[in-house]
Amino acid sequence: MSRILRYHSTGRPADVLTLETESAPDPAVGEVRLTVLAAPVNPADINQIEGKYGKQPSLPATPGAEGVARVESAGPGVSTLSPGDLVLLPPGAGSWRESLTTAAQDLVRIPADLDILQAAMLRVNPPTALLMLTQYTDLNAGDWVLQNAANSGVGRCVIQIAKARGLHSLCVVRRPELIPELEALGADAVILDRREDMASIRERTGGAKVRLALNAVGGDSATGLAAALAPGGTLVTYGAMSKQALKVPNGFLIFKDLRVRGFWLTRWFENATVEERGPVFDELIALASAGRLTVPVENTWPLGEFAAAVDQAQREARSGKILFRMSA
Amino acid sequence: MSRILRYHSTGRPADVLTLETESAPDPAVGEVRLTVLAAPVNPADINQIEGKYGKQPSLPATPGAEGVARVESAGPGVSTLSPGDLVLLPPGAGSWRESLTTAAQDLVRIPADLDILQAAMLRVNPPTALLMLTQYTDLNAGDWVLQNAANSGVGRCVIQIAKARGLHSLCVVRRPELIPELEALGADAVILDRREDMASIRERTGGAKVRLALNAVGGDSATGLAAALAPGGTLVTYGAMSKQALKVPNGFLIFKDLRVRGFWLTRWFENATVEERGPVFDELIALASAGRLTVPVENTWPLGEFAAAVDQAQREARSGKILFRMSA
Repeated sequence: MSRILRYHSTGRPADVLTLETESAPDPAVGEVRLTVLAAPVNPADINQIEGKYGKQPSLPATPGAEGVARVESAGPGVSTLSPGDLVLLPPGAGSWRESLTTAAQDLVRIPADLDILQAAMLRVNPPTALLMLTQYTDLNAGDWVLQNAANSGVGRCVIQIAKARGLHSLCVVRRPELIPELEALGADAVILDRREDMASIRERTGGAKVRLALNAVGGDSATGLAAALAPGGTLVTYGAMSKQALKVPNGFLIFKDLRVRGFWLTRWFENATVEERGPVFDELIALASAGRLTVPVENTWPLGEFAAAVDQAQREARSGKILFRMSA
Repeated sequence: MSRILRYHSTGRPADVLTLETESAPDPAVGEVRLTVLAAPVNPADINQIEGKYGKQPSLPATPGAEGVARVESAGPGVSTLSPGDLVLLPPGAGSWRESLTTAAQDLVRIPADLDILQAAMLRVNPPTALLMLTQYTDLNAGDWVLQNAANSGVGRCVIQIAKARGLHSLCVVRRPELIPELEALGADAVILDRREDMASIRERTGGAKVRLALNAVGGDSATGLAAALAPGGTLVTYGAMSKQALKVPNGFLIFKDLRVRGFWLTRWFENATVEERGPVFDELIALASAGRLTVPVENTWPLGEFAAAVDQAQREARSGKILFRMSA
């Protein structure tokens, strides 16, 4: 018997989650049985438990969009994985559990020496950052990318992946104490989300034509990014922390040819072929192995302390991510 | 000596326009001398005189983004045009004048039997409509396009060009008396810009996945179009009659993959090659010659009555366009 978190109705996470047990089935043909080692609490997990996400699972459901696991046993016909291998869980697996039996072909194998907690956070934020940097505009080394919410999990990945690709990042944050921290992480410029700082963007980028801005806030913050983009630039929205709709002055569209798009990792996983996924994870695993793609961790919790874990994950101004660290 | 309208400062059109005279120079190598026959008063002309347009000319300036003219004489080296030929004026010529000497290569020759007033309106609204229908999504016969401000000059072109291309148009208007008129013009469905009608779009299109919406209003009207688009659909803004910014719920971008773009004909003319312009005007001239692309005319005025002309052009609820009809 192994432990698993479930919610049978949507609502406040600490209230609706329950710790249950189940027996993990033996692997069938093409399957492996996994022991889950660690899984983060992501904002989308919280939103889904609250019933406020774009795609809701049928209930009861187990939360957790990503996690890292160890192969315990392999069923007949599995040649790509062996007991002891480390893997990233597939989309939709529900990672807030101790054990899982699933198809081997959906798993991404990772190096044995990768930090377990960092590996557990490799399937959601890093590909979101990498794909937003590559799918909307052809950026060349030396080009700039703007982003707000730069201290978020995705924001920190954008800084590090941009740096590794020779791109410059101009980052917008709300708290001044984050400026030295993000500069140390590799941001080329960090400014505060207020009018006078936003007006300095052209100066901070040396007058470069900025063609890509990444928005996880919405409202006035997004409009500020749009104003700083060069003609023909693209504003990509992947979050809405302010809960305010995007306001786009008509002139930005008509006269400045602003392109407004959205990114949702779930859609990418639904549409991407194995050939498209491969290079994305190869690049991210290589960066993580080299220690060039790290996310700070504030705390880890055992599954049984789920109420404390989700409460802490919903606090603003954390110093890092909250993860479940299974006892196994 | 010929007459020409100019403004030396921006402001209320009837106040700042002045009727002046100039001598039309003889055509140099590669040039022709033209007698302007007719030119419409377009909203962008008014906005430019008011100083409220995205691209303002240096002053003094002559308004008029389009018009039709007759070739009077050709300079040395002109083989493509002869005296008596009818042509469309080039972008930026300033059509509110009686005479113009300009490069022959910038002119689009049109058939002699084309209606003069219809020809005068062929260079701005019809290509705007055609390019918006073709440049953002690949629509196939039977597909739907949504549009608001469907009674505008562009809107009426969208209806007629869509019909000629086998596309269905669902049109949003503010005044119920326009419904039978636009249906007679070829619109497949016409609804009012209010919540209950907007909610009926799916029903009116037979549940079709609508992938293109054209917006000249902004504000809530644009949000209504965005809500009716299918996942992955594109909202193209080319006007802002409500003077309200576009409001885009973040979920439309993230979860529905809405693409928000803008269209500005001036940018297209700046970037399009001769090879790209040719087929566009061929298609429009063929439609106009066949009587399948017509715009209603409310009134024509001589150049000298410019104050009455621009005042009438700024009235809402007109029955058609206002044009200058030069005496020549």
